[in-house]
Formats: sequence, C-alpha cells, structure tokens
Amino acid sequence: MHLSSLNPRIEKVQYAVRGELAVRSEAIAEDIKKDANSHPFSAVVACNIGNPQQLNQKPITFFRQVAALTEYPDLLAPENRPTTSKLFPEDAITRAETLLRDMGAPSIGAYTHSQGILSIRRTVADFIRRRDGDAFPTPDPNNIFLTTGASSGVQTVLGFLIGHPDVGVMIPIPQYPLYSATLSLYGGKGVPYFLNEKEDWGMSVVELTESIAAARAKGTDVRALVVINPGNPTGQCLSRENMQEIIRFCHDERLVLLADEVYQVNVYDPDQKPFHSFRKILLEMGEEFSDLELFSFHSTSKGVVGECGRRGGYLECTHIDSQVMAQLYKISSVSLCPNVPGQLMVDLMTNPPRPGDVSYPQYEKETKGIFDSLKRRSTMLSDAFNNMEGVTCNPAEGAMYVFPRICFPKKAIKAAEEAGKLPDEFYALAMLDATGVCVIPGSGFGQEKGTWHVRSTFLPREELFDDFIDGLRNFHQEFMAKYKDE
Amino acid sequence: MHLSSLNPRIEKVQYAVRGELAVRSEAIAEDIKKDANSHPFSAVVACNIGNPQQLNQKPITFFRQVAALTEYPDLLAPENRPTTSKLFPEDAITRAETLLRDMGAPSIGAYTHSQGILSIRRTVADFIRRRDGDAFPTPDPNNIFLTTGASSGVQTVLGFLIGHPDVGVMIPIPQYPLYSATLSLYGGKGVPYFLNEKEDWGMSVVELTESIAAARAKGTDVRALVVINPGNPTGQCLSRENMQEIIRFCHDERLVLLADEVYQVNVYDPDQKPFHSFRKILLEMGEEFSDLELFSFHSTSKGVVGECGRRGGYLECTHIDSQVMAQLYKISSVSLCPNVPGQLMVDLMTNPPRPGDVSYPQYEKETKGIFDSLKRRSTMLSDAFNNMEGVTCNPAEGAMYVFPRICFPKKAIKAAEEAGKLPDEFYALAMLDATGVCVIPGSGFGQEKGTWHVRSTFLPREELFDDFIDGLRNFHQEFMAKYKDE
Repeated sequence: MHLSSLNPRIEKVQYAVRGELAVRSEAIAEDIKKDANSHPFSAVVACNIGNPQQLNQKPITFFRQVAALTEYPDLLAPENRPTTSKLFPEDAITRAETLLRDMGAPSIGAYTHSQGILSIRRTVADFIRRRDGDAFPTPDPNNIFLTTGASSGVQTVLGFLIGHPDVGVMIPIPQYPLYSATLSLYGGKGVPYFLNEKEDWGMSVVELTESIAAARAKGTDVRALVVINPGNPTGQCLSRENMQEIIRFCHDERLVLLADEVYQVNVYDPDQKPFHSFRKILLEMGEEFSDLELFSFHSTSKGVVGECGRRGGYLECTHIDSQVMAQLYKISSVSLCPNVPGQLMVDLMTNPPRPGDVSYPQYEKETKGIFDSLKRRSTMLSDAFNNMEGVTCNPAEGAMYVFPRICFPKKAIKAAEEAGKLPDEFYALAMLDATGVCVIPGSGFGQEKGTWHVRSTFLPREELFDDFIDGLRNFHQEFMAKYKDE
Repeated sequence: MHLSSLNPRIEKVQYAVRGELAVRSEAIAEDIKKDANSHPFSAVVACNIGNPQQLNQKPITFFRQVAALTEYPDLLAPENRPTTSKLFPEDAITRAETLLRDMGAPSIGAYTHSQGILSIRRTVADFIRRRDGDAFPTPDPNNIFLTTGASSGVQTVLGFLIGHPDVGVMIPIPQYPLYSATLSLYGGKGVPYFLNEKEDWGMSVVELTESIAAARAKGTDVRALVVINPGNPTGQCLSRENMQEIIRFCHDERLVLLADEVYQVNVYDPDQKPFHSFRKILLEMGEEFSDLELFSFHSTSKGVVGECGRRGGYLECTHIDSQVMAQLYKISSVSLCPNVPGQLMVDLMTNPPRPGDVSYPQYEKETKGIFDSLKRRSTMLSDAFNNMEGVTCNPAEGAMYVFPRICFPKKAIKAAEEAGKLPDEFYALAMLDATGVCVIPGSGFGQEKGTWHVRSTFLPREELFDDFIDGLRNFHQEFMAKYKDE
C-alpha cells in the first residue's frame, strides 16, 4: 500500500480541526512535559475543538453517578445498598435501576438493538415532544437511531445520498468540515452556499437559489441541503422566518434537509433568537410539506453536557420512506450497535432531573453555571477580537466558537506566501508558537475569497480568561507590528 | 429518497447476523412480553450473535469496578475514600487513578487523541509483546489505533484498499459477513476462497492459489487477503505451518494481510492447537518478509471479557508505509475519537490483574469459570448436532460458534422452495417458531454449493444447556419426520 495505490478519495479528505495545527500543538505539549521551559508558555490551550471537559468543564454530577451505577450494578445489591446510599443520591440509584431494567439485556455489556435501546429511543421521543410542543404527535421511536456522536449519523445519511459521483449536497461556507470531509470520502460533490458575514452569518435563499442553479447547470445532481443551526463555526441562530424559507426552498427543489442541531442548547440570547428545531417548523407548515424529508442530528458532546468522549448522539428521521428506513436499519446493524455508555448518556441528557427530584437543585446549579459562563466567555472573546487592530468579529449567538475576520497587512500575506502557507494558517501557527493557543485557520472551514478568519472556541476556564485574552491581544499586536505595511 | 434513488450499493449489502431471523425473533420477544402464552416457549434464545452478556455471562468484576470509578471520580476524593474502600478493592481504586492521571485529559468526557489515549496504546503494545514473546521489539504505540469494536477498524482498512470497482479482497467462505457487507458497501469485490469442511475447516494454499488466479483472469485487482483466526463461523484454529504458508502466499502475490484475531482467547484445545498471532509468525519469518503489510484486529467483545456493548477494540499496523499511516490518522480524526469507555476496557483487557494483586484471585476465578464453561458448552453443542439425523458438525477449536452441516430431505428442500426460502433459512425459521432459538442460516456466511448449514453460538447459560439441546433435538426430529422422503 502506497499513497498512490490507496483509494484516491482518502488523500482528498481534509479535516482541519485535527490537522496540522492540532498535530503541532500535541508535539508542543510533549515538549513541555519533558521540559517546562521549552516554550514561552506553560501549557497548550486547545481552542481548536469544542472539547469542554478537556479544558476542565465539570461533568454533570447526576449523569456520572448514574453511569457509575450502571457500570457496576453490584453497588445496587441489597447488601451494598446502605454504603452505596452514602455515596449516591436516591434518584441516581432509581434511575440506574430503571435503565438496567428497561434496556432489554441483563447488562450494559451486551450489544443492543442496532438502532439503540428502545426505552432510550422512547425517552428521546418524549424529549422531542416536550421541546417542540404538544401540538405535534410524539415521534415514533422507530424513526430514531442512536448514533456514535452526531458524526456517524451524518456520515450514514450522506452515504445513502451519494449514489454516483455527480450527486451534490449543499453545504454552508464556512462549515464544520465533517461535511466536506465525508463528501470527499464518499465521492460526492459539495455545493457551497455562502453565509453572509455582514448579516450575522445569516442564510439567504437568494444565495441558495443561485448556488443550486450554478451547480445544476454544471450537471450536478443536487439532492440535499445541510444546515448547521446554531452555526459552526459561525454561531448564528436562524430565525423562524428564515427556517420557513429554507424549508420552502428544499420543498421546491426536492432536496432532503439535513439539520445539524447539536448546539441547540448553546443559544445565548434565547429571547431575541430562540432555538427552533427544523422538525417543529416543518410540522407547523402543515400537510403541504409532509413530503419534505428531514434528518435531524443531536449529540451528547455539546450543550452544557459536554460528554464528547463517550460518543453519544441520535438521528431523527421525519417523513422518510419506509423502505429507506429499513435500509438504514440494515446498515446500522453491520456495525452491530452504538456504544451503550453513549446511549445511556443520551437518555440522561434528554431526561435530566426535574424540579422536585433530589438531584434537581445540583443539576440546575451545574447546568446554569456552565451555560451562564459560556455566554459570558462568548461575549468576552468576541469583544476582545473586535478590539484588535484589523479584526471584526460577529458575536456568537450560539454554539461554542467565534470566527473573527482578520485583515492582514500585505507584508504578512507575503511572509505567509514565502513560508508556503495561507495567511490564516501562517497567523494561527504564529499564535500557537507564541502563546500556546491552538485555533484553526478559516481556510479549514471555507471562507469568501480574499477574506481570512480563525475559529476559536471560548472554552478556556473563566478564571483563566483574562490571561487567555491578554495573550491573544499581545500576540496580535506584535504580529501586526512585525508585518506592518510601510 | 426512494430505494431506487439511494446509493445503489446500500441495497446490495447483506448482513444476516441481524437479518430476517433476528428481526423476527425480536417481534416474538415483544409478543411474549405482552402474552406469555403467545408462543410454545417462554423466551427467545438469541444464538444468532456472539453476545455473551445478553445471555447472562457476568462481566469481569474488576473491569467494571474500574469503569465505575472512572465514571464518577468523586468516589476517589479524600472525603469519600473511606466509604469507597468498603465497596471497591484497593487495586481497582489505584488503577482508576492511574488511568485518569495518564489519559491526557481531566475527564473521560473529553475527546481523546484520534488514535486513542497514548497510555492505553502503550498498554496494548506491552500486551502484544508479552503475548508474542520478547524475541521481538515492543510495537510502536503509534502503529496502534484504538477502534469502535473491531468492526470499525476492518471497515477503515477496507475503505483504504478499495480504490476502484475492480479491487478484490480475498475472503473465506464461510465468513463473518462484516467482510462481504463492507465490500458491497464500498464497491469492492469479494474474492472467495473456501475453507475445507472435511479437514476441520482448514485453509489450503492450493485453494487460495486457484481462487486468486481465477479472479485475476477475470480482471480483478486482488489486493488483500482476510483471515479470521480462530474462525467465525467455523471455529478453526490455524497451525503455525499453515500460517507460514499463508504469509508466503501473501508475500508472493503482493497481498496485504488482514488478520481478524478477535477470538484469540477463545481457543479450546491450546495444547494441540494454540493461538499464534500473524504478527508473531510474520516476525519469526525474518527480514525477507519485512515488506509484508499486516493489519491485525482485536476486540473487547469476545474472549472471556464479552464487553460487546461498549464497542472497544484495536487495530495494529505492521510494516505499513508511513504515508499510509498518516492517512489512517487523518481519517480517524474525522470521527474525532473512539469512545472512551471502550478505550478503557481495552486497557483493562490487555492489562488485567496479575498474581499478587488483591483482585487477582477473583479475576482468575471468573475468567477460568467462563473459559472452562465455554469449552464444555462448545463440546456439548457439537456433540448434540453430531447425534442428530443427517447432521455433521466439526468441533469448535475456537471462537463461540458451531457451524453444523445439515443434509435435508428432498421434501424439505421442496417445501422451502414453495415458501420462497432457501432450505437453511426455512429450517432456521422453523426452529425459531418451534423453540425460540434464533440461529443464522449458513447462506448468510456463504457455503459450498449444495451444502446447508446453520451457525449457532454456544452461549446459552450452562445450567440451561440440557434444556436448550433437548429443544433443538426435538425440533430437529420433528422437522426431519415431517419432511421425510418417502
């Protein structure tokens, strides 16, 4: 096997979130482990990826208590109960017992149903009903697939859509590169539509219409539209009206809609810009749109849960043909089942403690603490970027990232070119070397030609945030001074 | 989306292990839940899939203790330690602390390195050295990828190999259908080679040579050979000499070798037929074979661990080009990381308690109990099949399955045809309806033309085994009597 003999699509795949910057940051972290003075900073700060617990966000206590009890059910045995009760609250014990009783197997060590445990899919269905309102029926649990994070659900659906090399899928630019990477891997075509930076990264149907027309004129068989809402890397939250337009567009153009809603809880101005699920808006639009096919994705990795490591998530299918559903089941079965600890976390995320439960006050305090802090940090980081020379940054209405635009001096662009880098890569590498902060160049997400961005999470701990921002500011000043045009 | 517009490869995928029989068995289980008298038996016995804990195999206590502590590290806090120590042995506490300290993140809720946690890959490397002997260097942890069960590793490697529709991969017949399913999905060609039922499902290089010649004559670009050792569904264990021949064959034919070794612990006559890893045999063969590329797969789902639900496993790369390795890392990174509870189980499986550890006696007792019982049940089941009319069954030298051959009366074959089924499907469906036992027809694995088999696990609990076998025997007698040729 050599690069030249491999599946040629493999080499085309690009995934910047864990690309050159991330690899270099790992090498630096290893250096520091060996010699604390090897770099002009004491630690790498991984702002390249939305990985909250890596940066010390605390897991939700109740969720982990239940997880521990399901791992080791001997703790629930009568002879251990008195001791266990000193370490675990009663509602965690009850929830663990319920999960173990209803999972259809005597242990979390068994393969489950390939769509995921039925009782958990029922919990998800109830969650969706509560979220979207009682006006609509509870989803059928058979339309829900538990997945390995949201990523595997997205990849499965894209794999279904791409039937030949001219199939196109509309993706936002900038976008989370899972989409472009998967399209490269499966041999489909990304049909880009641009988000409007000047209007808070809004989505425009005019842009969608132009984009699809251009693609079809080139012979692309455009079959689906991906929307990331709240946006990644851009953080925008779509308005109800905008979502209705998008649904109408998909309906008119006979596109399948893929709604990546993994940041649905990370919405920082819910009064002005609340989260609406595409499912809800679609169902509100009534019978006329009952043939619009929708796949919605959610994850345990984001929100205030931040349980990235266990790879939990779900995929909900709305208005999908029953024969297609049968094929989805079959393909899921080849991988046997999603991992059970991830499935259990989906249950906990979608059915957390409620008022009156023993664990509710702590749950409420923890989730509110995380949410409020994310909101504050989001503002601090976008403000900081906006105060830097040549930088403009839309506030993050949602998600975990800011995506500031940087106007580089000509001299910096020339220096980048000489180093064989794009200007945003050159800048991000310089930032990493100077500060230990790892961000991702905008070129990894796509951006309008001639514009340059970086994506940074706002996940460093709040008590470290002033230092974090000072570091960025100092670096930026020095960088701009060094490459100042004369 | 309709069946006709989907990626046409999707429909071609077949995966019998969770196919019609499994779906029907689930429906029957639902019936029984509603009405205990709805079927002539009280429970479905899922012998369709190697899922030990579904059939009440107990998880290894030490493993689950460590898993629980890593889930809820508050148990390790000084104020809780005295209480925790009443519930958990000291070595489980120490192991959990070590895992948490070395994982490179403050929590198991963080995404890890895309290849898996480095300290765990080091543990795997040590395990491989201990298993294969000190004659060879410890593998480089960078050549090890932790995976989502073995399946995802297999799928990744096949995805790399299949660069165009004429790429062929040699697979055994009968085979575990992950291989044929993945080849269908990725658009490659399965190049079958037959295992020899008359010689304990042995592998013959003559057969391999004929098979590859026939495929190449038809224009297939044969690139790799899959070996499952111990075999699934056939249970055979390869001899050292046979493995050397296979390696020579791959070397001569310039094939990449994929060694599926997930049943390496399930070897029931280790004195006569010990397990050897392909890595060890390859390294023993010396410099001449240092360009033979080998991918080896292992899993937490089988052995005596049986932790199917957490989807843990690893892939080891031997003699793989560094540019290909870089691409493997990149593709892994698109899925972010394997789930952490699965990674932790790989650590525990490859570094269990040792003599002198507090938990060793219990670990030893549990694993020996499971192993010895599997061995007894394996013999009981193959003996039972051999005592049935028209049935011959090789003993399982390894793995978790027997694959008896059934010689059906002409009348049964005709009845199957009238029902639109293959004879082995017809038989397995009749068995399910009569006994609740779910086995998989040999046609799901491939078999020589004109022969018919079923695959059954020998995982029902030993105390239920007499009843289980009685049920099979009675069913078989009645089936054969009903369709007796006149």
